Amino acid sequence: MRELKVELGRRSYPIYIGRGILSARELYAGLLPPSAQLMIVTNTTVKKLYLAGVKAALSDYVTSSYVIPDGETYKNLDTLNDIVTELLKNHFDRGCWLVALGGGVVGDITGFAAACYQRGVDFIQIPTTLLAQVDSSVGGKTAVNHEMGKNMIGAFHQPRGVIADTAVLDSLPAREFSAGLAEVIKYGLIRDAEFFAWLEENMEKIMARDADALEHVIELSCRNKAEVVAADEREAGLRAILNLGHTFGHAVETALHYHTWLHGEAVGAGMLMAADLSVRQGWLDAGDAERIRQLLERAGLKTALPPKLHGANLRDIMAVDKKARGGRLNLILLKGIGRAEVVADFDEALLSKTLDAFTGRGVPA
Amino acid sequence: MRELKVELGRRSYPIYIGRGILSARELYAGLLPPSAQLMIVTNTTVKKLYLAGVKAALSDYVTSSYVIPDGETYKNLDTLNDIVTELLKNHFDRGCWLVALGGGVVGDITGFAAACYQRGVDFIQIPTTLLAQVDSSVGGKTAVNHEMGKNMIGAFHQPRGVIADTAVLDSLPAREFSAGLAEVIKYGLIRDAEFFAWLEENMEKIMARDADALEHVIELSCRNKAEVVAADEREAGLRAILNLGHTFGHAVETALHYHTWLHGEAVGAGMLMAADLSVRQGWLDAGDAERIRQLLERAGLKTALPPKLHGANLRDIMAVDKKARGGRLNLILLKGIGRAEVVADFDEALLSKTLDAFTGRGVPA
Repeated sequence: MRELKVELGRRSYPIYIGRGILSARELYAGLLPPSAQLMIVTNTTVKKLYLAGVKAALSDYVTSSYVIPDGETYKNLDTLNDIVTELLKNHFDRGCWLVALGGGVVGDITGFAAACYQRGVDFIQIPTTLLAQVDSSVGGKTAVNHEMGKNMIGAFHQPRGVIADTAVLDSLPAREFSAGLAEVIKYGLIRDAEFFAWLEENMEKIMARDADALEHVIELSCRNKAEVVAADEREAGLRAILNLGHTFGHAVETALHYHTWLHGEAVGAGMLMAADLSVRQGWLDAGDAERIRQLLERAGLKTALPPKLHGANLRDIMAVDKKARGGRLNLILLKGIGRAEVVADFDEALLSKTLDAFTGRGVPA
Repeated sequence: MRELKVELGRRSYPIYIGRGILSARELYAGLLPPSAQLMIVTNTTVKKLYLAGVKAALSDYVTSSYVIPDGETYKNLDTLNDIVTELLKNHFDRGCWLVALGGGVVGDITGFAAACYQRGVDFIQIPTTLLAQVDSSVGGKTAVNHEMGKNMIGAFHQPRGVIADTAVLDSLPAREFSAGLAEVIKYGLIRDAEFFAWLEENMEKIMARDADALEHVIELSCRNKAEVVAADEREAGLRAILNLGHTFGHAVETALHYHTWLHGEAVGAGMLMAADLSVRQGWLDAGDAERIRQLLERAGLKTALPPKLHGANLRDIMAVDKKARGGRLNLILLKGIGRAEVVADFDEALLSKTLDAFTGRGVPA
């Protein structure tokens, strides 16, 4: 087992990474106060696989559980209200803890419920997807969706601990596993060239879900994210580099009405689009863009967009993206592998060329 | 005009207190960034009286407004969702500001909307009741109600500034004005014997709504609360003394199904019940309890409970009060005027005597 500390002053917390650790009683004993009231929030699929194991490890505590139906649809204020109802029915007070057992949706809504139940209670995360382990575990971002936009209602609320069990990845479908790897590759690209090179050397082991390789993947991803978050907890500036590929990716997801591609798949293609524009700007070697394309493909990710998307349409969607401030779009671009920067002074004509190239009306840089 | 700074490190903010200042353009200019997007949230009654004046003073900004129907009923997640809808329809981004124009309900829900819209935006408060000016302006408590309990969903989120205009009190009904004075008297009782004595000397001026007296009342109340909050922002300990009279008061409100008495009226009677128990415990002079009773009466507050309440019933309600921890009820009691303490080791038999005395089955201490 590996242990990583996210350094946030008095909000610091540990991330434990290892095989089979979601049923390790001693980890919970180290995190939770004796006889704490605990509410485990999970979803239908994860409940069947892991709830019994977690409950057994928590048998010393007053636990109850709440199961959300699967799917992003339920990440809303109605479900938040239902969780609060359950907490109140069980007479849970301000000293209670929530436990998020699931992927990103469960983590986001449970974290937000913890942020606002009686103005804030503690919570721990047991992420059960690779994406949640490498992304949602660090950063304290919690939220629910509004019908007019994703994550529009939320809070920054740090967990008191994260238990990332690599064994849960055994049951993860290949597409979801690859979607998680998109975020892993992102950490290499934005600030850790050495980790990117390690991923190039070890992608076969990772795809075979080798236990040691996965622990390294999760540790390095979380460490990179933790360092960025520690420097910019409230997302005032630096933290924006974590959005590499996301503005392009969101545009693709929106154009596809969120039904066709997974978020991580869109981010993967979005990073390649960012790399393409970076090459056109003269900031990145074409050879490095090619390394990125190859690594994404070896990770099982898509490097071409579905047919029938239009570059101009993607550009329109990007304009309304919430990262657009004061009429000017900011993009995260690459000045090399391991060097991402927030850029406002990119060339609009080159952006159009990138969008055209990826929508079949032009050629890659 | 008086100015008071609430000292909370980088979350410090000013409270301006004066007559007619809600239309003072220069105050807003000092608080808001140039050309900020502003959403004024208010209610039906307050809109008619003050919205035009505030909007005129904010004519340099992109303002829109959202009007909540009057009443605590609307302090819920549905209204929160509606406010977010309005913000998104107006394309308000993370740099927008909310303005709470109204009493406690508007302040609580607007503050909570600010706390969670896109994970947190700034807001200012323009409290339009005495209670909101002396209580809600300081402390950063924001919340909405859940059908099973008041203020169960919320956040600690500090405003960036408060504009307390004493002229708005001219239109405040006498009962609401008195209810606000209950909280004012509370600040004297819990930690400021000198202020309590000043209130005794000046209650006639205050009841006549003399402008200078009101400014002093608001300044001293906010200063006392600010000092408590600065020492205990997240309500870990000391801040509990601000709940003097509240556990008794909540029990009375609950027994009356929240229809008969205003919150401040219940707190007023609750403080007298706390004083009665403190006398029985031998911690407070009977003469001081009598001073408290007289001051409450001069402030237009009730010092006897409505008929048909039962002491044992009130005790049961107190037991489920959220301030009860680990089965043991904590009460805020008085060791003198200006000296409140959180007490767990009170005598249950004496508590019963106090409850009986106030429900007509016994005599006051």
